[in-house]
Amino acid sequence: MLGIDPGSRVTGFAVVETHGGALYPVGFGVIRPAAGEMAARLAEIFAGVARVVAELRPEALAIESVFLARNAQSALKLGQARGAAICAAAQAGLPVFEYAPRAVKLAVVGSGRADKTQVQHMMRQILRIEEPLAADAADALAVAVCHSHTEQTRGYSSRRLAAAQDAAR
Amino acid sequence: MLGIDPGSRVTGFAVVETHGGALYPVGFGVIRPAAGEMAARLAEIFAGVARVVAELRPEALAIESVFLARNAQSALKLGQARGAAICAAAQAGLPVFEYAPRAVKLAVVGSGRADKTQVQHMMRQILRIEEPLAADAADALAVAVCHSHTEQTRGYSSRRLAAAQDAAR
Repeated sequence: MLGIDPGSRVTGFAVVETHGGALYPVGFGVIRPAAGEMAARLAEIFAGVARVVAELRPEALAIESVFLARNAQSALKLGQARGAAICAAAQAGLPVFEYAPRAVKLAVVGSGRADKTQVQHMMRQILRIEEPLAADAADALAVAVCHSHTEQTRGYSSRRLAAAQDAAR
Repeated sequence: MLGIDPGSRVTGFAVVETHGGALYPVGFGVIRPAAGEMAARLAEIFAGVARVVAELRPEALAIESVFLARNAQSALKLGQARGAAICAAAQAGLPVFEYAPRAVKLAVVGSGRADKTQVQHMMRQILRIEEPLAADAADALAVAVCHSHTEQTRGYSSRRLAAAQDAAR
Protein backbone atom coordinates (compact mmCIF):
# COMPACT_ATOMS: atom_id res chain seq x y z
CA MET A 1 0.00 0.00 0.00
CA LEU A 2 1.46 3.32 -1.16
CA GLY A 3 0.33 6.58 0.46
CA ILE A 4 1.20 9.90 -1.18
CA ASP A 5 0.86 13.43 0.23
CA PRO A 6 1.50 15.50 -2.90
CA GLY A 7 2.85 19.05 -2.99
CA SER A 8 4.80 21.11 -5.49
CA ARG A 9 7.62 21.70 -2.96
CA VAL A 10 7.46 18.53 -0.85
CA THR A 11 5.72 15.27 -1.71
CA GLY A 12 5.53 12.71 1.08
CA PHE A 13 5.45 8.99 0.26
CA ALA A 14 5.03 5.88 2.38
CA VAL A 15 4.64 2.17 1.76
CA VAL A 16 3.10 0.01 4.48
CA GLU A 17 2.36 -3.72 4.58
CA THR A 18 0.07 -5.88 6.69
CA HIS A 19 1.34 -9.15 8.18
CA GLY A 20 -0.86 -11.13 10.55
CA GLY A 21 -3.12 -8.16 11.19
CA ALA A 22 -0.20 -5.84 12.09
CA LEU A 23 1.00 -2.95 9.96
CA TYR A 24 4.66 -2.48 9.07
CA PRO A 25 6.35 0.49 7.38
CA VAL A 26 8.26 -0.76 4.33
CA GLY A 27 9.66 2.64 3.39
CA PHE A 28 8.78 6.30 3.66
CA GLY A 29 10.25 9.71 2.98
CA VAL A 30 9.82 12.87 0.98
CA ILE A 31 10.52 13.93 -2.61
CA ARG A 32 11.84 17.53 -2.70
CA PRO A 33 12.26 18.64 -6.31
CA ALA A 34 15.26 20.94 -6.84
CA ALA A 35 14.26 24.62 -7.05
CA GLY A 36 13.70 25.44 -10.70
CA GLU A 37 11.15 25.35 -13.45
CA MET A 38 7.70 23.93 -12.82
CA ALA A 39 7.99 21.25 -15.53
CA ALA A 40 11.28 19.95 -14.13
CA ARG A 41 9.78 19.81 -10.63
CA LEU A 42 6.76 17.85 -11.88
CA ALA A 43 9.06 15.45 -13.75
CA GLU A 44 10.99 14.90 -10.48
CA ILE A 45 7.78 14.10 -8.60
CA PHE A 46 6.72 11.69 -11.37
CA ALA A 47 10.16 10.01 -11.45
CA GLY A 48 10.33 9.86 -7.64
CA VAL A 49 6.95 8.14 -7.31
CA ALA A 50 7.78 5.81 -10.23
CA ARG A 51 11.02 4.82 -8.43
CA VAL A 52 9.19 4.13 -5.14
CA VAL A 53 6.66 1.95 -7.01
CA ALA A 54 9.42 0.06 -8.87
CA GLU A 55 11.49 -0.54 -5.72
CA LEU A 56 8.87 -1.14 -3.03
CA ARG A 57 6.17 -2.78 -5.21
CA PRO A 58 3.00 -1.49 -3.50
CA GLU A 59 -0.25 -2.90 -4.87
CA ALA A 60 -2.32 0.31 -4.76
CA LEU A 61 -2.10 4.06 -4.22
CA ALA A 62 -4.06 5.87 -1.50
CA ILE A 63 -4.21 9.66 -1.63
CA GLU A 64 -6.20 12.35 0.17
CA SER A 65 -9.02 13.90 -1.80
CA VAL A 66 -8.96 17.69 -1.86
CA PHE A 67 -11.95 19.57 -0.53
CA LEU A 68 -10.87 23.10 -0.95
CA ALA A 69 -7.54 24.75 -1.52
CA ARG A 70 -6.76 28.21 -0.17
CA ASN A 71 -7.07 29.83 -3.58
CA ALA A 72 -7.08 29.05 -7.31
CA GLN A 73 -3.32 29.54 -7.71
CA SER A 74 -2.41 27.11 -4.91
CA ALA A 75 -5.09 24.68 -6.16
CA LEU A 76 -3.47 24.72 -9.60
CA LYS A 77 -0.01 23.98 -8.14
CA LEU A 78 -1.38 21.23 -5.90
CA GLY A 79 -3.32 19.80 -8.87
CA GLN A 80 -0.18 19.66 -11.00
CA ALA A 81 1.75 17.83 -8.27
CA ARG A 82 -1.21 15.45 -7.72
CA GLY A 83 -1.42 14.82 -11.47
CA ALA A 84 2.29 13.95 -11.63
CA ALA A 85 2.11 11.58 -8.63
CA ILE A 86 -1.14 9.89 -9.70
CA CYS A 87 0.10 9.39 -13.28
CA ALA A 88 3.27 7.69 -12.06
CA ALA A 89 1.21 5.22 -10.02
CA ALA A 90 -1.51 4.73 -12.64
CA GLN A 91 1.12 4.14 -15.37
CA ALA A 92 2.51 1.33 -13.22
CA GLY A 93 -0.97 -0.21 -13.10
CA LEU A 94 -1.80 0.67 -9.48
CA PRO A 95 -5.46 1.30 -8.66
CA VAL A 96 -5.95 4.68 -6.97
CA PHE A 97 -8.11 5.22 -3.86
CA GLU A 98 -9.08 8.64 -2.52
CA TYR A 99 -9.91 9.39 1.11
CA ALA A 100 -11.26 12.63 2.56
CA PRO A 101 -8.73 14.32 4.89
CA ARG A 102 -11.23 14.04 7.77
CA ALA A 103 -11.62 10.30 7.17
CA VAL A 104 -7.84 9.82 7.26
CA LYS A 105 -7.49 11.71 10.57
CA LEU A 106 -10.45 9.86 12.03
CA ALA A 107 -8.94 6.51 11.01
CA VAL A 108 -5.47 7.12 12.43
CA VAL A 109 -6.01 9.50 15.38
CA GLY A 110 -9.67 8.90 16.20
CA SER A 111 -10.66 12.50 15.52
CA GLY A 112 -11.38 14.25 12.22
CA ARG A 113 -9.92 17.45 13.65
CA ALA A 114 -6.47 16.09 14.60
CA ASP A 115 -3.54 18.35 13.79
CA LYS A 116 -0.28 17.46 12.02
CA THR A 117 1.61 16.86 15.30
CA GLN A 118 -0.99 14.34 16.46
CA VAL A 119 -0.82 12.52 13.11
CA GLN A 120 3.01 12.39 13.36
CA HIS A 121 2.81 11.10 16.93
CA MET A 122 0.24 8.39 16.11
CA MET A 123 2.13 7.22 13.02
CA ARG A 124 5.30 6.74 15.10
CA GLN A 125 3.27 4.85 17.73
CA ILE A 126 1.25 2.63 15.39
CA LEU A 127 4.19 1.78 13.13
CA ARG A 128 6.89 1.69 15.87
CA ILE A 129 9.00 4.32 14.07
CA GLU A 130 11.88 5.57 16.22
CA GLU A 131 13.67 7.94 13.88
CA PRO A 132 12.41 11.51 13.24
CA LEU A 133 9.43 11.62 10.89
CA ALA A 134 8.82 14.50 8.45
CA ALA A 135 5.25 15.87 8.56
CA ASP A 136 4.68 15.10 4.85
CA ALA A 137 5.92 11.52 5.26
CA ALA A 138 3.62 11.16 8.30
CA ASP A 139 0.65 12.33 6.22
CA ALA A 140 1.58 9.82 3.50
CA LEU A 141 1.80 7.06 6.12
CA ALA A 142 -1.59 8.15 7.51
CA VAL A 143 -3.45 7.81 4.21
CA ALA A 144 -1.74 4.45 3.57
CA VAL A 145 -2.76 3.22 7.04
CA CYS A 146 -6.30 4.56 6.51
CA HIS A 147 -6.58 2.55 3.30
CA SER A 148 -5.13 -0.59 4.91
CA HIS A 149 -7.72 -0.35 7.72
CA THR A 150 -10.50 0.13 5.18
CA GLU A 151 -9.32 -2.87 3.14
CA GLN A 152 -9.04 -5.05 6.26
CA THR A 153 -12.53 -4.06 7.40
CA ARG A 154 -13.84 -4.76 3.91
CA GLY A 155 -12.06 -8.17 3.88
CA TYR A 156 -13.41 -8.93 7.36
CA SER A 157 -16.95 -7.97 6.31
CA SER A 158 -16.70 -10.14 3.17
CA ARG A 159 -15.45 -13.08 5.25
CA ARG A 160 -18.29 -12.60 7.77
CA LEU A 161 -20.76 -12.38 4.91
CA ALA A 162 -19.35 -15.56 3.32
CA ALA A 163 -19.52 -17.36 6.70
CA ALA A 164 -23.09 -16.18 7.22
CA GLN A 165 -24.04 -17.35 3.73
CA ASP A 166 -22.40 -20.74 4.38
CA ALA A 167 -24.27 -21.05 7.67
CA ALA A 168 -27.56 -20.19 5.97
CA ARG A 169 -27.22 -23.01 3.42
CA MET B 1 6.89 21.87 -31.80
CA LEU B 2 4.12 20.38 -29.65
CA GLY B 3 1.31 22.57 -28.36
CA ILE B 4 -1.02 21.29 -25.64
CA ASP B 5 -4.30 22.75 -24.38
CA PRO B 6 -4.90 20.64 -21.27
CA GLY B 7 -8.26 19.89 -19.70
CA SER B 8 -9.67 17.08 -17.59
CA ARG B 9 -12.41 16.36 -20.18
CA VAL B 10 -10.71 17.38 -23.43
CA THR B 11 -6.99 17.91 -24.03
CA GLY B 12 -6.05 19.45 -27.36
CA PHE B 13 -2.69 18.61 -28.95
CA ALA B 14 -0.94 19.86 -32.08
CA VAL B 15 2.48 19.41 -33.66
CA VAL B 16 3.69 22.02 -36.16
CA GLU B 17 6.94 22.28 -38.11
CA THR B 18 8.73 25.12 -39.86
CA HIS B 19 10.18 24.61 -43.36
CA GLY B 20 11.68 27.55 -45.22
CA GLY B 21 9.97 30.06 -42.97
CA ALA B 22 6.52 28.51 -43.44
CA LEU B 23 4.58 26.61 -40.78
CA TYR B 24 3.05 23.19 -41.45
CA PRO B 25 0.70 21.16 -39.25
CA VAL B 26 2.20 17.70 -38.70
CA GLY B 27 -0.70 16.40 -36.65
CA PHE B 28 -3.38 17.66 -34.29
CA GLY B 29 -6.45 16.45 -32.44
CA VAL B 30 -7.95 15.95 -29.01
CA ILE B 31 -7.57 13.40 -26.24
CA ARG B 32 -10.95 12.68 -24.63
CA PRO B 33 -10.48 10.35 -21.66
CA ALA B 34 -13.36 7.89 -21.21
CA ALA B 35 -15.78 8.97 -18.48
CA GLY B 36 -14.65 7.34 -15.26
CA GLU B 37 -12.33 7.76 -12.32
CA MET B 38 -10.02 10.74 -12.12
CA ALA B 39 -6.85 8.63 -11.96
CA ALA B 40 -7.79 6.67 -15.10
CA ARG B 41 -8.54 9.91 -16.95
CA LEU B 42 -5.16 11.39 -15.96
CA ALA B 43 -3.42 8.19 -17.07
CA GLU B 44 -5.18 8.50 -20.46
CA ILE B 45 -3.98 12.10 -20.87
CA PHE B 46 -0.45 11.04 -19.92
CA ALA B 47 -0.49 8.07 -22.33
CA GLY B 48 -2.06 10.15 -25.11
CA VAL B 49 0.59 12.86 -24.92
CA ALA B 50 3.35 10.24 -24.64
CA ARG B 51 2.01 8.59 -27.83
CA VAL B 52 1.94 11.91 -29.71
CA VAL B 53 5.54 12.60 -28.64
CA ALA B 54 6.69 9.11 -29.66
CA GLU B 55 4.96 9.22 -33.04
CA LEU B 56 5.40 12.84 -34.14
CA ARG B 57 8.77 13.56 -32.46
CA PRO B 58 8.32 17.24 -31.53
CA GLU B 59 11.43 18.88 -30.05
CA ALA B 60 9.67 20.97 -27.35
CA LEU B 61 6.34 21.51 -25.59
CA ALA B 62 4.56 24.87 -25.57
CA ILE B 63 1.65 25.32 -23.17
CA GLU B 64 -0.44 28.26 -21.98
CA SER B 65 0.35 29.53 -18.51
CA VAL B 66 -2.68 29.89 -16.26
CA PHE B 67 -3.48 33.27 -14.78
CA LEU B 68 -6.59 32.55 -12.89
CA ALA B 69 -9.06 29.72 -12.93
CA ARG B 70 -12.75 30.25 -12.18
CA ASN B 71 -12.45 28.67 -8.74
CA ALA B 72 -10.24 26.41 -6.64
CA GLN B 73 -12.05 23.21 -7.69
CA SER B 74 -11.66 23.86 -11.43
CA ALA B 75 -8.06 25.02 -10.84
CA LEU B 76 -7.32 21.70 -9.14
CA LYS B 77 -8.80 19.69 -12.05
CA LEU B 78 -6.97 21.79 -14.62
CA GLY B 79 -3.77 21.47 -12.60
CA GLN B 80 -4.06 17.68 -12.55
CA ALA B 81 -4.56 17.54 -16.33
CA ARG B 82 -1.66 19.96 -16.87
CA GLY B 83 0.52 17.88 -14.55
CA ALA B 84 -0.25 14.71 -16.54
CA ALA B 85 0.44 16.35 -19.92
CA ILE B 86 3.62 18.15 -18.80
CA CYS B 87 5.02 14.99 -17.15
CA ALA B 88 4.52 12.99 -20.35
CA ALA B 89 6.50 15.58 -22.35
CA ALA B 90 9.15 16.16 -19.67
CA GLN B 91 9.66 12.39 -19.26
CA ALA B 92 10.43 12.23 -22.99
CA GLY B 93 13.09 14.91 -22.51
CA LEU B 94 11.17 17.81 -24.11
CA PRO B 95 11.86 21.30 -22.74
CA VAL B 96 8.64 23.05 -21.71
CA PHE B 97 7.80 26.66 -22.60
CA GLU B 98 4.88 28.59 -21.10
CA TYR B 99 3.09 31.48 -22.80
CA ALA B 100 0.45 33.75 -21.32
CA PRO B 101 -2.97 33.29 -23.00
CA ARG B 102 -2.93 36.96 -24.08
CA ALA B 103 0.49 36.51 -25.72
CA VAL B 104 -0.75 33.48 -27.66
CA LYS B 105 -3.82 35.33 -28.98
CA LEU B 106 -1.72 38.37 -29.81
CA ALA B 107 0.77 36.20 -31.73
CA VAL B 108 -1.80 34.31 -33.80
CA VAL B 109 -4.73 36.73 -34.19
CA GLY B 110 -3.06 40.10 -33.57
CA SER B 111 -5.24 40.87 -30.55
CA GLY B 112 -4.91 39.72 -26.95
CA ARG B 113 -8.71 39.72 -26.67
CA ALA B 114 -9.49 37.38 -29.58
CA ASP B 115 -12.18 34.78 -28.93
CA LYS B 116 -12.09 31.02 -29.62
CA THR B 117 -13.79 31.37 -33.04
CA GLN B 118 -11.19 33.86 -34.22
CA VAL B 119 -8.37 31.56 -33.05
CA GLN B 120 -9.97 28.63 -34.92
CA HIS B 121 -10.39 30.74 -38.05
CA MET B 122 -6.81 32.04 -38.02
CA MET B 123 -5.32 28.58 -37.39
CA ARG B 124 -7.17 27.20 -40.43
CA GLN B 125 -5.94 30.18 -42.50
CA ILE B 126 -2.30 30.19 -41.36
CA LEU B 127 -1.89 26.41 -41.55
CA ARG B 128 -4.13 25.85 -44.62
CA ILE B 129 -6.34 23.37 -42.73
CA GLU B 130 -9.47 22.48 -44.69
CA GLU B 131 -11.13 19.93 -42.43
CA PRO B 132 -13.16 20.93 -39.36
CA LEU B 133 -11.00 21.94 -36.41
CA ALA B 134 -12.01 21.31 -32.78
CA ALA B 135 -11.65 24.38 -30.53
CA ASP B 136 -9.22 22.59 -28.20
CA ALA B 137 -7.06 21.44 -31.11
CA ALA B 138 -7.09 25.04 -32.45
CA ASP B 139 -5.90 26.31 -29.05
CA ALA B 140 -3.11 23.72 -29.06
CA LEU B 141 -2.11 24.78 -32.59
CA ALA B 142 -2.15 28.42 -31.47
CA VAL B 143 0.30 27.94 -28.61
CA ALA B 144 2.56 25.83 -30.87
CA VAL B 145 2.47 28.56 -33.56
CA CYS B 146 3.13 31.24 -30.90
CA HIS B 147 6.22 29.36 -29.74
CA SER B 148 7.44 28.81 -33.34
CA HIS B 149 7.12 32.55 -34.03
CA THR B 150 9.00 33.34 -30.82
CA GLU B 151 11.77 30.88 -31.68
CA GLN B 152 12.08 32.26 -35.24
CA THR B 153 12.23 35.84 -33.95
CA ARG B 154 14.83 34.78 -31.39
CA GLY B 155 16.86 33.03 -34.14
CA TYR B 156 16.55 36.08 -36.38
CA SER B 157 17.67 38.42 -33.56
CA SER B 158 20.67 36.17 -32.79
CA ARG B 159 21.65 36.10 -36.46
CA ARG B 160 21.33 39.90 -36.70
CA LEU B 161 23.35 40.28 -33.51
CA ALA B 162 26.06 37.95 -34.86
CA ALA B 163 26.16 39.87 -38.17
CA ALA B 164 26.37 43.18 -36.33
CA GLN B 165 29.19 41.83 -34.17
CA ASP B 166 31.02 40.56 -37.27
CA ALA B 167 30.60 43.96 -38.96
CA ALA B 168 31.90 45.73 -35.85
CA ARG B 169 35.14 43.72 -35.85
